[in-house]
Amino acid sequence: MDYKAPTREQRFVLDHVTGIAELSGHNAFAAATSDMIDAIIEGAAQFAEGEYAPLNRIGDLEGAKWQDGSVSLPQGFRDAYQAFVANGWGSINGPEAFGGQGLPFFLFTVVMEDLGSANMAFSLINMLTPGAIEALIAHGTPEQQEKWLPKLVSGEWSGTMNLTEPQAGSDVGALRTTATPVGDGTYRIKGQKIFITFGEHDLTDNIVHLVLARTPGAPAGTKGISLFIVPKYRLKEDGSLGPLNDVRCTSIEHKLGIHASPTCVMSYGDQDDCKGEMIGAEMGGMKAMFTMMNQARLNVGGQGVQIAERATQAALAYAAERIQSARADGSSEGPVAIIEHPDVRRMLFRMKALTQAARTLIYYAAGQADRAHVGIENAQERLDLLTPLAKAYCTDIGCEVASLGVQVHGGMGFIEETGAAQYYRDVRIAPIYEGTNGIQAADLVGRKLTNNGGAELKALLTEVRTESSEAALLTLVDAVEEAVDWMLRACVNDRLAGSYPLLTMVAVATCGWLMARQGRIALEMLARGEGDALFLKAKAVTASYYLKHIVPEATGLKAQAMAGAEGLYELSTDELLALG
Amino acid sequence: MDYKAPTREQRFVLDHVTGIAELSGHNAFAAATSDMIDAIIEGAAQFAEGEYAPLNRIGDLEGAKWQDGSVSLPQGFRDAYQAFVANGWGSINGPEAFGGQGLPFFLFTVVMEDLGSANMAFSLINMLTPGAIEALIAHGTPEQQEKWLPKLVSGEWSGTMNLTEPQAGSDVGALRTTATPVGDGTYRIKGQKIFITFGEHDLTDNIVHLVLARTPGAPAGTKGISLFIVPKYRLKEDGSLGPLNDVRCTSIEHKLGIHASPTCVMSYGDQDDCKGEMIGAEMGGMKAMFTMMNQARLNVGGQGVQIAERATQAALAYAAERIQSARADGSSEGPVAIIEHPDVRRMLFRMKALTQAARTLIYYAAGQADRAHVGIENAQERLDLLTPLAKAYCTDIGCEVASLGVQVHGGMGFIEETGAAQYYRDVRIAPIYEGTNGIQAADLVGRKLTNNGGAELKALLTEVRTESSEAALLTLVDAVEEAVDWMLRACVNDRLAGSYPLLTMVAVATCGWLMARQGRIALEMLARGEGDALFLKAKAVTASYYLKHIVPEATGLKAQAMAGAEGLYELSTDELLALG
Repeated sequence: MDYKAPTREQRFVLDHVTGIAELSGHNAFAAATSDMIDAIIEGAAQFAEGEYAPLNRIGDLEGAKWQDGSVSLPQGFRDAYQAFVANGWGSINGPEAFGGQGLPFFLFTVVMEDLGSANMAFSLINMLTPGAIEALIAHGTPEQQEKWLPKLVSGEWSGTMNLTEPQAGSDVGALRTTATPVGDGTYRIKGQKIFITFGEHDLTDNIVHLVLARTPGAPAGTKGISLFIVPKYRLKEDGSLGPLNDVRCTSIEHKLGIHASPTCVMSYGDQDDCKGEMIGAEMGGMKAMFTMMNQARLNVGGQGVQIAERATQAALAYAAERIQSARADGSSEGPVAIIEHPDVRRMLFRMKALTQAARTLIYYAAGQADRAHVGIENAQERLDLLTPLAKAYCTDIGCEVASLGVQVHGGMGFIEETGAAQYYRDVRIAPIYEGTNGIQAADLVGRKLTNNGGAELKALLTEVRTESSEAALLTLVDAVEEAVDWMLRACVNDRLAGSYPLLTMVAVATCGWLMARQGRIALEMLARGEGDALFLKAKAVTASYYLKHIVPEATGLKAQAMAGAEGLYELSTDELLALG
Repeated sequence: MDYKAPTREQRFVLDHVTGIAELSGHNAFAAATSDMIDAIIEGAAQFAEGEYAPLNRIGDLEGAKWQDGSVSLPQGFRDAYQAFVANGWGSINGPEAFGGQGLPFFLFTVVMEDLGSANMAFSLINMLTPGAIEALIAHGTPEQQEKWLPKLVSGEWSGTMNLTEPQAGSDVGALRTTATPVGDGTYRIKGQKIFITFGEHDLTDNIVHLVLARTPGAPAGTKGISLFIVPKYRLKEDGSLGPLNDVRCTSIEHKLGIHASPTCVMSYGDQDDCKGEMIGAEMGGMKAMFTMMNQARLNVGGQGVQIAERATQAALAYAAERIQSARADGSSEGPVAIIEHPDVRRMLFRMKALTQAARTLIYYAAGQADRAHVGIENAQERLDLLTPLAKAYCTDIGCEVASLGVQVHGGMGFIEETGAAQYYRDVRIAPIYEGTNGIQAADLVGRKLTNNGGAELKALLTEVRTESSEAALLTLVDAVEEAVDWMLRACVNDRLAGSYPLLTMVAVATCGWLMARQGRIALEMLARGEGDALFLKAKAVTASYYLKHIVPEATGLKAQAMAGAEGLYELSTDELLALG
């Protein structure tokens, strides 16, 4: 099944949800003219369709291979990656001072969407390097930036994030990797990291690991963590590649999906000769890491959109070509394509509506990231609120839509060669990594909800209410407000017990608001005879579907959001285990 | 992760939902004494835990292997299958006249639950043979029964169902396989069947295929279909194995899951020498097939329970041993097991509640099957109504619970060696085969809903309302009744458009009713000091969770159930395709 980037949809959402006209008025984004935006949307589409998509299935079948510490990717990956670098796709929103194009983050989001829809596993390398760039820009010294940024921005080198250790997953503060100063300003790194995406591979000349570790005497927990740059190859004085560092990939995982993305166990300092340099302040590691993580969370939310889009396209194509059974209403003589049957159509509309809703939320959040970047008031607070919503809700959508995609294919959906099963497997990681969706929900009902009496969330809900007139949406907003007021008075365990359903409710309300807006704009444009009539009609129909079907469903979560934690602890852990 | 059969729970549901005391009063089930039931529950548990469960992972890793038309299963499968036969597990509810034990179907359901929880892929062979037995009992001549039943009942031979052809999936009537009389009472079979589970394997001495085909001049569609017995080895006069029939497995599928269940492409009559005998009347094939299919649909619904149970056990064990983060409420000094965290506990309770609800529905339906068998009034009508609910809702639960199981495991859930990913992959077939869940929903809003003005569904809802006092459940029943009344007035496309959400609502209302009953009984027994106090407390807590969390969610589906089809057709198929 070929991938075709949804370029009209992307531009429409950028125009009416991201609000790119306003952003391009800022000096920092002067280069992001309307023509330039179109050129990037079209160029990224062609690149992803032509270079990344054809490698999706071979990537799944062959996967990344580990041998003696080296990791190789299937045939074609190296060439496609080199084309990625040569065409400048890695440098879209990199800083101009280091060879980047200085374009807004929202354009990076569009490029990543296409790459990830085409080949989610492969695109992870393109997603992680910008995190390293971001950390260097925010926390690196000018010398460090000079040394590391140009080749990261171009994509000639790749970057990684090294947080997790066997005993330190969601609880990053439990990590034990050590960093000991050697006297020349550098540190000796020692420890084991797991689940390191693209920790080792054969696509770039060097790999720049950003590693969290503890300096001697550092306090326990997250307060005692510092961040280090640990390259695969050390650099000579002139910046060219020197000797191998004492960094080794000791194995890769056998996973449910994203087989072409090597998930590495990394061993630092087995020979006591792993050199790293600190980035940012000592004990400032978590702050620096959050710089990378917040953006990474949006990007992972984007993966939900990516697979949802791809799965929807595949299901639509299959449903239109698979002939089976006559129409139930007797209006056809013989069998028709299954797309004509109401329940198949229901699944396809649900897939389309959820996919568009997820994209809407991601693009809206990306616009807030760009607004925050240029210092627009309140944008950072809004982005902080949206980040857990976008990460959790959009990845849940990715999983649901991929599962519907399997279902539309019927028996063929369970056969691997069809591709639907791969999307279902690949996307299942998205609700887990970069902070599980449960962690996102905890983030929402923690600081994000309680800061300033819930002011930011209440402001968002007020915006939704003010702009919307759809009855189901207003009913949902009522329910969210009631649950939020209850949570603000509730104890921490009660808030956490209802955190996941609340997150879904808030996310659906936000998406309902933005989908309704798009539907209204589409109808207005149709009335004025502007734009692509078919696209606009479809947008209005899909928005209406989301409001009539998905929004009322979310209202049904209110009881769960407000149920409290007591019922969850009526059985003690020992009792639960004794039950089996 | 070891499997431990939930024997107390099984017996409790049999007592209070299936109503086994009433059933054992019937002559036909006189052997099903309370002690015998306990013995079978315990024996099946031990057998499944000891013989089938240890083969689950190797079955997934190695899978069934095809070579030159033969299919072999991994090491250990043949021995375990022979133990199954030797211990008499295949003959539980087989007719006594042919070596069976004549026990109720509900006991077969319990045995299948244990086998499927232990090893879903393997257990498919145990699920299909009874379908062939059932068809022979209902439609075979005395000679056919004498010839085929004893070794099918014992399990020495296995049975298959052959419906699907490339162009005939949900639309069985489109099949093209032919059966031509050769003059001696037998038929020459010719055609290709796909998706034939255990169509070829090395576990039994013979395989008895039940094959749907068309006789010469038969009308188009399902009306022209007859059913044939087509053995792998023909039988000699004395019933012993004769020469190979012209039946060949030409390939097996590479699937998302259930790797140890060979899914075969079967070719009949390549050499024009495939002999079969008709079973039942000519043109009576669909009726005979439905005999097998209705029971198979309940059994597939049971697979949802099976994987949900296994996934829940694995998640609970992992959550109790994985130490990560201190309690959010500050009540622990250091990190605790993740089972202590509210959102993880929410997932585990949701898994437990959904699993119990699914089991409740299956056991309730199994009891109705036994009631129908002994001719209790209205039992067949109730069973007919429950069948689509049980198949669709319970398999949806299997998928959701398996996905939650992956999530509870965090990053480890995405690693295959943990096992959680296998449950997630294996169970995904259950909403597809034996009539997709969409077909079940169509069945519900078709004949099952409209027969006699919806009398049977209304009678069920009245029972729910009469026995229940829980506010959320009564609200759901109101919503279901409103939707049903709307549907009874609606056109077929409107009914179909809302069929899936309506099915979920009716299923949740039914489960809510039966869970509430169990919760009440548990509390009464506790008050009287009867039974296992911990089990009863857990039952009451879990029932309460289902009523407070899951039931209100289903009420949120009302708008979808009553949305009608119009919105689904505002875009024509051409328009949908032009959009991409």
